[in-house]
Amino acid sequence: MRFFSDNAAAACPAVMAALADANRLDTAYDGDAWSQKLDGAFSDLFERQVRALWVPTGTAANCLGLAALCPPTGAILCHEQAHIEQDEAGAPGFFTHGAKLTLLPGEGAKLSPQAVDEACDRVRADVHQVQPAALSITNATEYGLSYRAAEVAALGEVAKRRGLGFHMDGARFANAVVFTGESPAELTWRAGVDVLSFGFVKNGGMNAEALIFFDPERAEAVPRLRKRAGHLLSKGRYLAAQLLAMLEGNLWLANARAANAAARALADAAGPARLVHPVEANELFVRMSADEAAQIRARGFDFYDWAPGEVRLVTSWDQEMDAVARLATAIAAL
Amino acid sequence: MRFFSDNAAAACPAVMAALADANRLDTAYDGDAWSQKLDGAFSDLFERQVRALWVPTGTAANCLGLAALCPPTGAILCHEQAHIEQDEAGAPGFFTHGAKLTLLPGEGAKLSPQAVDEACDRVRADVHQVQPAALSITNATEYGLSYRAAEVAALGEVAKRRGLGFHMDGARFANAVVFTGESPAELTWRAGVDVLSFGFVKNGGMNAEALIFFDPERAEAVPRLRKRAGHLLSKGRYLAAQLLAMLEGNLWLANARAANAAARALADAAGPARLVHPVEANELFVRMSADEAAQIRARGFDFYDWAPGEVRLVTSWDQEMDAVARLATAIAAL
Amino acid sequence: MRFFSDNAAAACPAVMAALADANRLDTAYDGDAWSQKLDGAFSDLFERQVRALWVPTGTAANCLGLAALCPPTGAILCHEQAHIEQDEAGAPGFFTHGAKLTLLPGEGAKLSPQAVDEACDRVRADVHQVQPAALSITNATEYGLSYRAAEVAALGEVAKRRGLGFHMDGARFANAVVFTGESPAELTWRAGVDVLSFGFVKNGGMNAEALIFFDPERAEAVPRLRKRAGHLLSKGRYLAAQLLAMLEGNLWLANARAANAAARALADAAGPARLVHPVEANELFVRMSADEAAQIRARGFDFYDWAPGEVRLVTSWDQEMDAVARLATAIAAL
Amino acid sequence: MRFFSDNAAAACPAVMAALADANRLDTAYDGDAWSQKLDGAFSDLFERQVRALWVPTGTAANCLGLAALCPPTGAILCHEQAHIEQDEAGAPGFFTHGAKLTLLPGEGAKLSPQAVDEACDRVRADVHQVQPAALSITNATEYGLSYRAAEVAALGEVAKRRGLGFHMDGARFANAVVFTGESPAELTWRAGVDVLSFGFVKNGGMNAEALIFFDPERAEAVPRLRKRAGHLLSKGRYLAAQLLAMLEGNLWLANARAANAAARALADAAGPARLVHPVEANELFVRMSADEAAQIRARGFDFYDWAPGEVRLVTSWDQEMDAVARLATAIAAL
Repeated sequence: MRFFSDNAAAACPAVMAALADANRLDTAYDGDAWSQKLDGAFSDLFERQVRALWVPTGTAANCLGLAALCPPTGAILCHEQAHIEQDEAGAPGFFTHGAKLTLLPGEGAKLSPQAVDEACDRVRADVHQVQPAALSITNATEYGLSYRAAEVAALGEVAKRRGLGFHMDGARFANAVVFTGESPAELTWRAGVDVLSFGFVKNGGMNAEALIFFDPERAEAVPRLRKRAGHLLSKGRYLAAQLLAMLEGNLWLANARAANAAARALADAAGPARLVHPVEANELFVRMSADEAAQIRARGFDFYDWAPGEVRLVTSWDQEMDAVARLATAIAAL
Repeated sequence: MRFFSDNAAAACPAVMAALADANRLDTAYDGDAWSQKLDGAFSDLFERQVRALWVPTGTAANCLGLAALCPPTGAILCHEQAHIEQDEAGAPGFFTHGAKLTLLPGEGAKLSPQAVDEACDRVRADVHQVQPAALSITNATEYGLSYRAAEVAALGEVAKRRGLGFHMDGARFANAVVFTGESPAELTWRAGVDVLSFGFVKNGGMNAEALIFFDPERAEAVPRLRKRAGHLLSKGRYLAAQLLAMLEGNLWLANARAANAAARALADAAGPARLVHPVEANELFVRMSADEAAQIRARGFDFYDWAPGEVRLVTSWDQEMDAVARLATAIAAL
Repeated sequence: MRFFSDNAAAACPAVMAALADANRLDTAYDGDAWSQKLDGAFSDLFERQVRALWVPTGTAANCLGLAALCPPTGAILCHEQAHIEQDEAGAPGFFTHGAKLTLLPGEGAKLSPQAVDEACDRVRADVHQVQPAALSITNATEYGLSYRAAEVAALGEVAKRRGLGFHMDGARFANAVVFTGESPAELTWRAGVDVLSFGFVKNGGMNAEALIFFDPERAEAVPRLRKRAGHLLSKGRYLAAQLLAMLEGNLWLANARAANAAARALADAAGPARLVHPVEANELFVRMSADEAAQIRARGFDFYDWAPGEVRLVTSWDQEMDAVARLATAIAAL
Repeated sequence: MRFFSDNAAAACPAVMAALADANRLDTAYDGDAWSQKLDGAFSDLFERQVRALWVPTGTAANCLGLAALCPPTGAILCHEQAHIEQDEAGAPGFFTHGAKLTLLPGEGAKLSPQAVDEACDRVRADVHQVQPAALSITNATEYGLSYRAAEVAALGEVAKRRGLGFHMDGARFANAVVFTGESPAELTWRAGVDVLSFGFVKNGGMNAEALIFFDPERAEAVPRLRKRAGHLLSKGRYLAAQLLAMLEGNLWLANARAANAAARALADAAGPARLVHPVEANELFVRMSADEAAQIRARGFDFYDWAPGEVRLVTSWDQEMDAVARLATAIAAL
């Protein structure tokens, strides 16, 4: 029973059905009927005109988005634990042609407006220093916290005042929407977000993520960048179909609700003293001795050690509630 | 009835079945059981130890391969009609950090050893000129011709003598193998090829191509480049499974055989006078007036105009032979 | 007696005097009094407000200028013999992050409006093909021909119509101004040129070239690019002082006049039959058998072989007219 | 009387004389007699065979050196106050095609072996994280401290053990050599340094720095990178001549000795309580209220505010000892 990554989960049945349905001849690249529906479907969801592009990975979504916001000579402000800094092999440097990530601290991998303001204040405006050009946050964060709309808006205010493009890495955006109960629009463009990497793969997709531009003009160069980075798949309909299937009937929310609920059950079992961070999405960071972790593993549960005395549990859309209950019992019994 | 692109065709049933089969929890990225089998499966096919990586597009395969062969300061020799020059939006410049494509002429989009030698001779060895570092050919070519093993080997000899890495864009490698009747090994590493972009998407795949390194040492940095370019998919098993399904029972050859046969039927119908190039794969370039093209289209056939008085027809693995026969009749009747 | 490169000549006395004069404490980088005068001095020369930056090499001037005109996803149209293609080690690819040079033919290394139009016509506007973004010509050309203002204007018209930024590599701009008798303004911005690499090093400078933006807004990002490329020298006053000294009293024209006159004398001696190209600046390409070349060299003259049966002679600002006369005699006597 | 930057000082007389001496026709680029002597001259100085290249700026020296040590996919470990991080406009990202700077803390802008080890330990070896490839330190540091040979060697040991290329930014290397009394060899290659940016401009040069490779094989690709970055000046002899003049009779040490002595005199006058850092080169960071700073400035002394309550004084090779004495008196009188 694995609790180590939502990347490891299967694709959900509706996605598989959508692939089967899309399995017929249509125009190549993104000229097909499914791809052509994306702008409309996401515009409906976000309650405004958006530009939506499929890409096969979150790294591609993040980096194409950042490349649209930050010139090679600029800096992207992000948390020191941000995925773009820690886990993308330097991809932002590749896609932006060498722009810099300026790393900021913050509890639970969240950024505060103060931290962003201070980082900007530290930079002289002369040609010798790299000028901040973009701000990137992750929602839900790398430590499983969710920004509320008001928190995003406070950051959006700084971004606007400082002239920074505002990017949200939403690999687990669905989990944040579910947790906060706030709408996709409130959590993004109404709070000043310019570009969203909207994750589906961790939430039951197979290999399609959405890159959303709230100002379609900002997206103008992006189809070309996507092609140049090798991310314009020949048969794009199979990606578009996945995304449409996930939006249909708000399946994306149902899946995230299931994953969040599983995480909540485990968090309750662990109790506040063991939790390193509040549990506001589908990840838990749990204080546990090596010995305790071994006990749990002996009962057939898989998860990552995160730091000495700390393990990470991740729940998925398809987590069997029975296994969750047994793990919760095992943790509670420690 | 569409004859405009093999990219437009559906994925074949075995691929769909493989996706369903792979649709269960496994390790993320390329740690899963399917991905781990790729080296072995392709080593068997090529009769030597190879390193095989999945990627979602031919552009990614070509450009990761070229980046492994050519430094930013080098040049890649290729045909002036090569896909990497004409249809990849400058992706080679992106992945290689600005290496140059040196364009060579040649009938039917084929390169000759002489052309390569002459291009090398034109370059002074000093620091002012960009030094050739790699040679890239496409087999089958952009005009639907197939290099025979002996032709590849003659180019391989020049490449070796000149110190050039040798890349083959095999978006339609299967069609070349079928047409020539020569083995994958003969057409590649035995003829001096270092890296092969082995295409599956145009041949019945959904969204997986293989990047093959015949000298695994050359591939050492590539997994990192793949990740950095956003091409390490989270759930790689769905790509690996497609490739394995296509290799199983030589399905890839059966599919290519079908496409080639359809092209052959059309070529025979058209007759040599109408054919701009010999038909040695699944593409035909046919001389046809605008009026004649309109007649054919009026009967329900779709295809691209290629040049004034010239149209392009592409056949797919799933071309209905009935439609092919009717198109053949229509062409023959012109 | 060397006739092989104007790069090999000494710096002229006024430049040396200017360096001595600037050899005192002032603000670093380009905050000094000399650097601050550049915009004004070049604005006077060009009869309009310009932005002028010093750089230490023509390659830096060309490539910073091109980077300001062409995005990484774009193409720069230039002659197949252009210095940026042949002799800058791929620097345009480096500074533009992988933009493409599209090579055009043309007599005497000159481009025609037709060639530019045809090159643009060949490009589909879709995302698969690299879109032309800039046009670059060299005046005087790599074969020693000078574009007249009307010829530049015809190219400027195409550039404007096609939406191309227009760059002129003026490594030997002085020689073109002298030969044509047309004003700096007529040969550049009045003819549609956006950016000029204005060469001084080949014309008696030591290590300073000027990069001129006729629309100062186009230059906005360039000081930052210059710094990022390591081309913002700590003690910029020594570069600015050279440029100002060369402008003073039109020394740059006097120097070019001397070099052109020497070339003219040699051209007259050689006679039209031996000249591969018209001599319109300070370079001659002379038909000469290996045996004849050896005879000339035996008399103490140095020059490069250019091609079988062809040598290149380059004259400098400081060419001794006595040596020129003797070489002319020797050539005439062949 | 300016104490704000050693970049602002004049070039020393021997450099001016060397320029005059080199002001004659010779081979272009680095084929001239002066450039050809560099390897020998620096090999003598460093007591081993080295490869020495001139470049016009410290940024170019640093970044070409780093590009030789670190692939685009790697990380360069450096101090968070390093010049390459703070004051080069992102040039390392440009020259390395997007490699990352990993920032480490340390007193006085010095790195400790522990800090380097810890930074390496924090990185997983998988493809998701950027792997450390190089270590860069500055000697003397950005805060005017000098590493002793033993300190460099301790870092060199870590670098070797971790497989990191080791670069030293020696913009003020001369000042460190003078302060420590240790030889150039002891402070560099004997301590494990692979590449040195050897600064001359801040020490009485005009516009030439030296880039030294202690293992000539590491330098193999660098002449080509230098050209591609626009840093191969046409008339290289004027740069080489400056460097040779500075080495002649150890002028570089005499100049640094003068600057260090001036800084020492000011440090003694300020007294330890006012000094933010030990004064071990030609820079002082002095605690001073805004009011006190105003008093000093009122007496005609120019310098930068560095932080609230802190000013920076920099002394040069040509600092008039009379002005130094008067400034010392003024500081002592606060």
